[in-house]
Amino acid sequence: MKAANLFADVSATLSEERFEPLVATKSFTLERIVSTGQTTAPGEWYDQERAEWVVLLSGSAGVLFEGEHEPRVLRPGDYILIPAHRRHRVEWTDTTDATVWLALHYTDA
Amino acid sequence: MKAANLFADVSATLSEERFEPLVATKSFTLERIVSTGQTTAPGEWYDQERAEWVVLLSGSAGVLFEGEHEPRVLRPGDYILIPAHRRHRVEWTDTTDATVWLALHYTDA
Repeated sequence: MKAANLFADVSATLSEERFEPLVATKSFTLERIVSTGQTTAPGEWYDQERAEWVVLLSGSAGVLFEGEHEPRVLRPGDYILIPAHRRHRVEWTDTTDATVWLALHYTDA
Repeated sequence: MKAANLFADVSATLSEERFEPLVATKSFTLERIVSTGQTTAPGEWYDQERAEWVVLLSGSAGVLFEGEHEPRVLRPGDYILIPAHRRHRVEWTDTTDATVWLALHYTDA
């Protein structure tokens, strides 16, 4: 039986964001994301085929949705349900502590 | 867009465990569970039709799997992937702080 800890192997400084699948089926992927100050590249947006339920578990981040003026600030425990094709970008992530996210990407079908 | 916090509305004393669906599709249900000292009833086992990926996010708990001698102690961030029909029971949950779990019940099909 697979067992581990979501906060294991987390360094406060990574050269790149880490995306690690935990469970994947035909209809969803559950993944851990670790950010250490990274942001979505300037001018770029996430525009995803699948809906995403995402929770921030440590650190903090600012997520901007297209059409909104200010990023939403996420703190530990905060979650958002992002519909498919709802354009958004990560404006900032914590530069002191690692930001750990748990994201569930899924299709409704 | 639905946004909230997994640690909101959590009391350290509840008369019953709380099970709250967050996202549900044909192939999975994601739910928050809040325990405040509750355990699986004596002599009973969970024997589930679907696989379950579950993480403990606050508090602590002891989960016993059939055929093992000691419960596995879960602390914040610890997760387990429980195959369908793998019999298990919650031997204890924290009696001081609320135990918040996030559980993903799913079929592989």
